[in-house]
Amino acid sequence: MDPDALAKAFVEHYYSTFDSNRAALANLYQEGSMLSFEGQKIQGSSNIVAKLTSLPFQQCHHSITTVDCQPSGATSAMLVFVSGNLQLAGEQHALNFSQMFHLMPTQQGSYYVLNDIFRLNYA
Amino acid sequence: MDPDALAKAFVEHYYSTFDSNRAALANLYQEGSMLSFEGQKIQGSSNIVAKLTSLPFQQCHHSITTVDCQPSGATSAMLVFVSGNLQLAGEQHALNFSQMFHLMPTQQGSYYVLNDIFRLNYA
Repeated sequence: MDPDALAKAFVEHYYSTFDSNRAALANLYQEGSMLSFEGQKIQGSSNIVAKLTSLPFQQCHHSITTVDCQPSGATSAMLVFVSGNLQLAGEQHALNFSQMFHLMPTQQGSYYVLNDIFRLNYA
Repeated sequence: MDPDALAKAFVEHYYSTFDSNRAALANLYQEGSMLSFEGQKIQGSSNIVAKLTSLPFQQCHHSITTVDCQPSGATSAMLVFVSGNLQLAGEQHALNFSQMFHLMPTQQGSYYVLNDIFRLNYA
């Protein structure tokens, strides 16, 4: 699978999981994983998922505008950079966001998220 | 120097160089460096600087809104994630952008940019 297709597949999987069952994102992080969420730094799969599941909205829908990817130097690792918007249930306007993921290969031939940085983009 | 301070110092240096003398950015890239600029992939310091110096504006000013950083796994390497806006000379409205850099240590105790992904954020 070429890296761009892999990045797109990851992004679709990540946000569809986020929008349907946030707790299931735990499988995509490990203990060394880091999330920077609007400037707050969180480490470890369980802490990251605790943060994501505690966000003050129940239903949301991510729409992806762009996906860029590059090899990050480490074997098979990839940087994935996403822009898009986030529609919260009951809100009139969608929120623009940018997010980056550093994906590392697992021994099972899959990927996990080592680095995750999320920011809303205010106009 | 702590990573957050280092990331901020890099970001200030990068954009002040971009805004005053784009050609001098060549020193921050190496032959293995990659730039994704609005979806276009470019590799190598000279090609990257050729792209940046050929952008269809002469004067610009970057204003930084947020800087996030995380260690990327490789020794002393850092991921830096920036949001901000870009004012072009003669244009009424600034353009929002997001950009990420993967900084790798050099043998001289400095850093170079291995990965650079830039996107304008359209509202």
